[in-house]
Amino acid sequence: MFIDKLIQNIKDKNSSVIAGLDPRIENIPDFIINEAFKYKNSEEEGISQALYLFNKGILDSIYDIVPAVKIQIAFYEAYGYEGLKAFYKTAEYAKDLGLIVIADVKRGDIQEVAKMYSKAYLKNPMFDAMTVNPYMGMDTLLPYLDDILEYNKGIFVLVKTSNKGSSDIQNIKSINGTYVYENVAEMIDEISNLAVGESGYSSVGAVVGATYPDEAKVLRSMMKKNFFLVPGYKAQGGTIDDIINCFDINGYGAVINSSRGIMYAFMSPYWKDVYSEFEYGQAAREEVLLMTGMINNEIIKKKYIAC
Amino acid sequence: MFIDKLIQNIKDKNSSVIAGLDPRIENIPDFIINEAFKYKNSEEEGISQALYLFNKGILDSIYDIVPAVKIQIAFYEAYGYEGLKAFYKTAEYAKDLGLIVIADVKRGDIQEVAKMYSKAYLKNPMFDAMTVNPYMGMDTLLPYLDDILEYNKGIFVLVKTSNKGSSDIQNIKSINGTYVYENVAEMIDEISNLAVGESGYSSVGAVVGATYPDEAKVLRSMMKKNFFLVPGYKAQGGTIDDIINCFDINGYGAVINSSRGIMYAFMSPYWKDVYSEFEYGQAAREEVLLMTGMINNEIIKKKYIAC
Repeated sequence: MFIDKLIQNIKDKNSSVIAGLDPRIENIPDFIINEAFKYKNSEEEGISQALYLFNKGILDSIYDIVPAVKIQIAFYEAYGYEGLKAFYKTAEYAKDLGLIVIADVKRGDIQEVAKMYSKAYLKNPMFDAMTVNPYMGMDTLLPYLDDILEYNKGIFVLVKTSNKGSSDIQNIKSINGTYVYENVAEMIDEISNLAVGESGYSSVGAVVGATYPDEAKVLRSMMKKNFFLVPGYKAQGGTIDDIINCFDINGYGAVINSSRGIMYAFMSPYWKDVYSEFEYGQAAREEVLLMTGMINNEIIKKKYIAC
Repeated sequence: MFIDKLIQNIKDKNSSVIAGLDPRIENIPDFIINEAFKYKNSEEEGISQALYLFNKGILDSIYDIVPAVKIQIAFYEAYGYEGLKAFYKTAEYAKDLGLIVIADVKRGDIQEVAKMYSKAYLKNPMFDAMTVNPYMGMDTLLPYLDDILEYNKGIFVLVKTSNKGSSDIQNIKSINGTYVYENVAEMIDEISNLAVGESGYSSVGAVVGATYPDEAKVLRSMMKKNFFLVPGYKAQGGTIDDIINCFDINGYGAVINSSRGIMYAFMSPYWKDVYSEFEYGQAAREEVLLMTGMINNEIIKKKYIAC
């Protein structure tokens, strides 16, 4: 089961941090840009190679201290066909380093279409899991469920997202007094039962934003079988106090994503006087270790309080 | 404005039918498969070429009788990098034939990510419009709005989808007595005002399934400025009586998509004894004309009743 493998990786690396690979061309160091464009025929080919080389440097620096990476496809799709080449090459490279690879694609469509998306990500050996959008209803999630079981893969369903406007739909109060995100949580809970691993967690997980600690608390108690993929830490304003609600009492149940915080650590006020752009990988590594230390510390406190 | 151009195309072609290009390798005639694989080095390259050649045959046969095509990216994404090559080539070919090209991608993500999706489809001259998912909230739609105005493009936001399970979230009844899909409609109405064309319609449209005529009626009266992109006709069970509610009193306000019905007309009980697989383009053309005739007839009846 995907979820048991994820938990094993978390134990092995002693970290619940996942690195988001969302490369922005304007933030990539000049020495990589120059290298990338050296043998390329077009602007697009050069950009694609730069995205990949930058990611490779990050992966080489952190692969032994994170359980998984999340690759946000939009940052590649923006450069069309050539850009997507870097997306697939990055996934392949991460996979070869033993990392769990989550395709952050947030797909959602009718069953006939969902089958094709599932083929693209769950059937594909390059990826271990994908994110999906539930707006179109639970029947649209069923094709993924089939492939989760057949290929030992996972999905993370959007429940309560990290952005400011997430309340527009997700926090509409229903006539029963529940919020839409709670209704979604309940529906996901049902399908999750079909993919529970030895760990007691399901390979059907949920996306729960770091920026809504109260909602996270409610969801943690409602969704006992679902691992949370938690975006929005730091760059979007989520703090360490906010995310602790996403973990269970044993310190599992959540992975915390950081994209900008890790990738551009070398540009941050905290590290920019310590590391040059040539050492962006080292800065990313230090940032991961710092973030892991803080989270592990909070997890220990949470266990202590529970005793 | 995108929407005025769409309406002009509808008038010029005298048709509200849009053809969905969702090629399935298992339905593509052998003579195309053989042609496609002749000079190809890999399975993926051959499939990609077959998808493109099949689409090209459809486009050559119908470009003068439909205002627009909708390309569902999942059918290409399923074959990874090579498959996506066929997606872009198809869009480019359709564009060269003067068609409006809608990328059916149903993207939805935080603003930083939405900007990249918008760059991929709205900034890209190959496409005129894209479909988007509103679950994450209205702030996630704003980056598209900027590009709609800057590049004369459009979006269609999912409101009430055609699938059976669409009621799971979309028909949750809120404490105010409205359904979630109505709340979404209201929110979209607000942002639509910023992109209204000379026609009185907005370049922000809505996806409203052919299979829910009652909801379509409610939405038509709520969303007077929003053009509807209507999936689910025929293959998903939507009938001519069901879709007529999507049109305004002048016969505008909606485009009706058919994918399987048009692409695989040559395999349908209706046409399979008339056309061989070599004539799949001709079968598609006849199907479009038949569908257009039926819809135009209903539109005339609707006008007549209103008089």
